[in-house]
Amino acid sequence: MKPLILQSDFGRADGAVSAMYGVAVGVSDTLRIFDLTHDIPQYDIWEASYRLIQTVQYWPEGSVFVSVVDPGVGTDRRSIVAKTATGQYIVTPDNGTLTHVKRMRGIVEARIIDETRNRLPNSGESYTFHGRDIYAFTGARLASGVISWEEVGPAVEPDTIVELPIVEATYGQDVVSGTVDVLDVRFGSLWSNIPRTLFQQLKVSHGERVEITISNDTRMLYKNIMVYAKSFADVALGEPLLYVNSLDNMAVAINQGSFARAYNIGTGNNWHIELRRAPRVIYE
Amino acid sequence: MKPLILQSDFGRADGAVSAMYGVAVGVSDTLRIFDLTHDIPQYDIWEASYRLIQTVQYWPEGSVFVSVVDPGVGTDRRSIVAKTATGQYIVTPDNGTLTHVKRMRGIVEARIIDETRNRLPNSGESYTFHGRDIYAFTGARLASGVISWEEVGPAVEPDTIVELPIVEATYGQDVVSGTVDVLDVRFGSLWSNIPRTLFQQLKVSHGERVEITISNDTRMLYKNIMVYAKSFADVALGEPLLYVNSLDNMAVAINQGSFARAYNIGTGNNWHIELRRAPRVIYE
Amino acid sequence: MKPLILQSDFGRADGAVSAMYGVAVGVSDTLRIFDLTHDIPQYDIWEASYRLIQTVQYWPEGSVFVSVVDPGVGTDRRSIVAKTATGQYIVTPDNGTLTHVKRMRGIVEARIIDETRNRLPNSGESYTFHGRDIYAFTGARLASGVISWEEVGPAVEPDTIVELPIVEATYGQDVVSGTVDVLDVRFGSLWSNIPRTLFQQLKVSHGERVEITISNDTRMLYKNIMVYAKSFADVALGEPLLYVNSLDNMAVAINQGSFARAYNIGTGNNWHIELRRAPRVIYE
Repeated sequence: MKPLILQSDFGRADGAVSAMYGVAVGVSDTLRIFDLTHDIPQYDIWEASYRLIQTVQYWPEGSVFVSVVDPGVGTDRRSIVAKTATGQYIVTPDNGTLTHVKRMRGIVEARIIDETRNRLPNSGESYTFHGRDIYAFTGARLASGVISWEEVGPAVEPDTIVELPIVEATYGQDVVSGTVDVLDVRFGSLWSNIPRTLFQQLKVSHGERVEITISNDTRMLYKNIMVYAKSFADVALGEPLLYVNSLDNMAVAINQGSFARAYNIGTGNNWHIELRRAPRVIYE
Repeated sequence: MKPLILQSDFGRADGAVSAMYGVAVGVSDTLRIFDLTHDIPQYDIWEASYRLIQTVQYWPEGSVFVSVVDPGVGTDRRSIVAKTATGQYIVTPDNGTLTHVKRMRGIVEARIIDETRNRLPNSGESYTFHGRDIYAFTGARLASGVISWEEVGPAVEPDTIVELPIVEATYGQDVVSGTVDVLDVRFGSLWSNIPRTLFQQLKVSHGERVEITISNDTRMLYKNIMVYAKSFADVALGEPLLYVNSLDNMAVAINQGSFARAYNIGTGNNWHIELRRAPRVIYE
Repeated sequence: MKPLILQSDFGRADGAVSAMYGVAVGVSDTLRIFDLTHDIPQYDIWEASYRLIQTVQYWPEGSVFVSVVDPGVGTDRRSIVAKTATGQYIVTPDNGTLTHVKRMRGIVEARIIDETRNRLPNSGESYTFHGRDIYAFTGARLASGVISWEEVGPAVEPDTIVELPIVEATYGQDVVSGTVDVLDVRFGSLWSNIPRTLFQQLKVSHGERVEITISNDTRMLYKNIMVYAKSFADVALGEPLLYVNSLDNMAVAINQGSFARAYNIGTGNNWHIELRRAPRVIYE
């Protein structure tokens, strides 16, 4: 019996998530069910992908995730289950939701859900709620051992799993460059795609200063110098800082303020961020 | 040991729901507790009733729901437990919360909660939180088998359970008419009270077009033609569609937009919706 | 095996809370995990403290709470586990989060978390997420019996636990005075720090009238007479009332309205509230 973890863009204000829970409890009355989040912005596959990479590794081997952000419900997009290199399973429409996990953790096996066997009985007439009728049902059966991994359906090459376009972070000429991947919603921090290990090539130590440039395709929005801090407490209230986030990537914040709101920063592949060692300023 | 599922209008921002959980865990340390939703708009009995009908059937027989939307706390409104035709229990103030379940699923038995036996010990001085002191406590005891169905309290006729006024959907002269019952909060779809089976009398097939009229008591807000689609994917991005929702009723949406917001549609018995087969348009 | 209950200011829109859950499930695959709330306003230690006192007593002895509102992460603020007089444990940064529990319930023992033993393996490089790496991890180990109370770390005097400044409610000259401690977020009621037992010195019975004055440091915002009611149902729709809240303190509300919004009332030690027996008005 493995834990089942649900993610969706359904919100928790109506009965949709609870119907998924009910289906899962109906599969097994000892299954343990948890939420990742149900507040993914509607149809935002990118964010669904990002929240998985933020979370999956902290769950035990064999945990089964169900992620339902599914703008293509009713098209011929595939329904799959992927097995990560660290042993967790993810049940999801194959629409890009696996992008970050595939690239950053690795997917070692994948299967297409055989809907002739893995569909909630008597759920035939509604075509709009595969989250309940197929994904939660299949995830619960896999997590509780009612079906084996093989019984999910036919194997497919992990290589064929759909990926959203991603820009890789790069290093060159004393600059590391990347994109603003996502916001820490509540605290307004920017999370970049620049790994700490890449940033280390700049040989900046904690307490030293870094010049940060942020631009989108039309204009530059921020260019200033801030401290590379071990934690928020290393800077004054209201002061900006560069730090390593909980994904081991570089992030930018204002201590107890919102960097994103202060400078109107957005996210995605056209939001560029550059870090370079700050010129030493000598006050005479 | 049966699952316990909680619903309320308390929100999750303070400690009220967690206090209910604590009381339930105190009743049994192996009881499994879940949420339906706690985001019912304050005092909105209609929506509480609707979220139950959206969810109850997906939970196993014997599941115990506790629903606390209770504007009449402290009046002489009854506190009851109803047993549905499909075997789930619902613990609730008898204020209309059972309207949809009673009419659409059926209630086969009901009991008034005997508060002399079924009240959290030492909870006498606060008169405002029956959700914790009576409903969660009684629901947890019933779900965990501490009390039997008979020990809830004296039986009452299911017929006496309070119902909110409901307008029935009707068919006549090639039109099906009903009301806009509720919104799919996050996606902005309108859920009508018109069952798919009633709509079928119009003999419209998937892919054919339907004329939709929406009005409230003062004016008409929408009159246009859209496709009857199997799923959102059958229409273009931003195109409206008529479809069958997860309750097997007719619903109207904009693919990846919000129909409710686009046309300022509300819900309730004075929000009328009519569906008729669209006249065939021949372009010459 | 005791229940684990999580509280934070992280919200539920991203993966942070789920990562904490994953760590806890990894500690024990039979541990039961619940939420208090994750919607504490960012960095609001006062409200974190208040939500604990609102909830803790309703959970069984031995329950382990983890509360992470931690503006000082990375400073030398202590990480502690407190044992309440009623036998629950609270894992938290020692920053004032224990204020209300310490004063109103009592803390009988406390230990500093020994991070050399009680830290998630391989979590060394990120300094910003102690909620996951230390607090959830330690709480889960304590709740599941992996570590004993002594193995948390060295004992400290409960007296040394940090408290936020609190103004005590007082009685004098037929007036009870206190502060507006917190709002019932969804219903707009004001919860004062005036215990029912202190209010009883005014010898006001249910149904009698009380004069309420509310002021902040700059001006008076409300002065009017309302009924001391047993419950909301004792007054008309839209009528204000004074009542005993679920913490056994005096509270002010508008029946099915928002008192806080109606009169722009805030919370904190500079928001004063006075209750006095209303003068009898005789209409001739």
